[in-house]
Amino acid sequence: MSTNQVYIAIIGAGGVGKCFLSQLQTLAARRPVPKLNLCYISTSKKALFKQDYSPIPYESALNDLSASSAAPLDLTKIVDYLAAAPSKAVLVDNTSSQDVADKYPEFLSRGISVVTPNKKAFSGSYSLWQNIFTAAATSGAKVYHESSVGAGLPVISTLKDLVDTGDEVTKIEGVFSGTMSFLFNSFAPLEGSGGKWSEEVKKAKELGYTEPDPRDDLNGLDVARKLTILARLAGLPVESPTSFPVQSLIPKELESVASGDEFLQKLPEFDSQMEETKTAAQNQGKVVRFVGSIDVATKSVKVGLEMFDRSHPIAALKGSDNIISFYTKRYGSNPLIIQGAGAGGDVTAMGVTSDLVKVLSQI
Amino acid sequence: MSTNQVYIAIIGAGGVGKCFLSQLQTLAARRPVPKLNLCYISTSKKALFKQDYSPIPYESALNDLSASSAAPLDLTKIVDYLAAAPSKAVLVDNTSSQDVADKYPEFLSRGISVVTPNKKAFSGSYSLWQNIFTAAATSGAKVYHESSVGAGLPVISTLKDLVDTGDEVTKIEGVFSGTMSFLFNSFAPLEGSGGKWSEEVKKAKELGYTEPDPRDDLNGLDVARKLTILARLAGLPVESPTSFPVQSLIPKELESVASGDEFLQKLPEFDSQMEETKTAAQNQGKVVRFVGSIDVATKSVKVGLEMFDRSHPIAALKGSDNIISFYTKRYGSNPLIIQGAGAGGDVTAMGVTSDLVKVLSQI
Repeated sequence: MSTNQVYIAIIGAGGVGKCFLSQLQTLAARRPVPKLNLCYISTSKKALFKQDYSPIPYESALNDLSASSAAPLDLTKIVDYLAAAPSKAVLVDNTSSQDVADKYPEFLSRGISVVTPNKKAFSGSYSLWQNIFTAAATSGAKVYHESSVGAGLPVISTLKDLVDTGDEVTKIEGVFSGTMSFLFNSFAPLEGSGGKWSEEVKKAKELGYTEPDPRDDLNGLDVARKLTILARLAGLPVESPTSFPVQSLIPKELESVASGDEFLQKLPEFDSQMEETKTAAQNQGKVVRFVGSIDVATKSVKVGLEMFDRSHPIAALKGSDNIISFYTKRYGSNPLIIQGAGAGGDVTAMGVTSDLVKVLSQI
Repeated sequence: MSTNQVYIAIIGAGGVGKCFLSQLQTLAARRPVPKLNLCYISTSKKALFKQDYSPIPYESALNDLSASSAAPLDLTKIVDYLAAAPSKAVLVDNTSSQDVADKYPEFLSRGISVVTPNKKAFSGSYSLWQNIFTAAATSGAKVYHESSVGAGLPVISTLKDLVDTGDEVTKIEGVFSGTMSFLFNSFAPLEGSGGKWSEEVKKAKELGYTEPDPRDDLNGLDVARKLTILARLAGLPVESPTSFPVQSLIPKELESVASGDEFLQKLPEFDSQMEETKTAAQNQGKVVRFVGSIDVATKSVKVGLEMFDRSHPIAALKGSDNIISFYTKRYGSNPLIIQGAGAGGDVTAMGVTSDLVKVLSQI
């Protein structure tokens, strides 16, 4: 095996995938060793690759992919293809697919390293989590997933450093969703009175800050997945993102309406509920925010609305920023705080690219 | 060479050194591979080591060191000793010595990796900086210095990730000194009016937040050194920490008084100067803070007093916390912010230990 060549396969060429490809091109141009050979790239419908692993030119990869008539390989075939590469291989999974995630143990046990922003692998069943890290430990392949929480913000790496160096993490708390951050910073701002809840949700959707159906953000599951990942890294064997209390902001009556559009149309009927919450906070001189928290000692994980003093860093958040506070024995009463954009193609891809750099330095 | 054994030499067994030794013991107990053999530990007066590299037991290292009658080896001899170790070796420099820093190129070129919180190596002459990284690139030995800025906070690693993945850092701004943070959070707090400047300096000294002679904090050089390191990592070839404007908070008349005690005794005579600065800020609804900033486009680096809106994250800092904001092309108008304790033995040692973990995964 030559370590001067590394083969890269990318699954997923959407928003994050495209940004990653561009960053990969820059990286490959700037560091000649090891040579990074893009050998496979696919969307859910198409793929581009050569059986002889000859490199796909970065410049034309997206055009060539959309012109390709080849269907994506089955995941098992991708494992075989990468395991047979002339040198070490790395899978870059830029999807949010559970199917791809379920295959990580197979990739890893065949010596293929994995870097990904895909939350599903690390927040699904606890047995998948164990299988992934056991496979990596056994084969020596690496698995990195910085962008699964807070996109490119150094959240996972910081938590790992705290744990690896023997600090005791006592509590993790924060705003983990760019969508929720934007919604509450507009609905219950520090200055001014903010808009009606349903109008802020509508505005967030129009600005592209929500999923096509905003209920996929408002159900809290995205935050619950991120909390599951952090809790496991902090040592709690959380079974799944549905095994702890998660407050959904979808009114019961609207859970089963047919479409996101119908949901948005009927949401104003329920504005008074959120307005009451906002007023209750105001009456205490506080603001309401949608947060996740992990209390390590009591093994309690929860996601939902909480009130914060107006001087609290969580209250002062802006735009769609995330904020994550690590309370630890070493850091004492003032937590280690990381804050900034926690969503978006470029910053998510940045986490994936910096993970790739870490993998390249080790394989 | 066996990669199952790594030899560790520690220079410096003061506050940081003791905490590091304790973290190293935990690390060695938790990860059996590679086996970490402590083969050398020294203070400025004593050393403990065996010519045959037999491991020094972690538990008794400090006691055995203080009971040792051996003098420290010359630095050149330490290079030879580690270069001849039966397996890879890492130098952990827990001093702030310029002499040790000057030797890094020699350690690195002989294949010995270096981890350290020592600012001198990375903020001294630009030629030393170049020699260090050229030596590392040529030999393949690693050099990490996370704790040289913000102690264990992920400042250096984050800046490296931003640069490595092709982001454009436009500005770095922050409070980089725990001492300055404490002084200004007490002298010009968000709530209340704060104490007199000279009294806050006296209190900070009594609490152990300053150097024995507080002028060593108030001259701004410590912050200038950190800015030099970050500016260089961001691509600016800053010649030295004295090659850009640094505002000293030592009144001219007190620069040459004989002792720190005499300085503290006479400082009250100059309280009106700082009081004027505080009042000027208050009159604009702002607070004054001691910050460093790097503007990459204009290549301007500076250290000194600045005024901040009361809602600015820098104004809201607490205790002796540091805060570092990275403004980049990808992160847009809201910076990536890292905040928390930036000084103290345990958190400084944490940066050193996590650097060591990174080195171990690569050598």
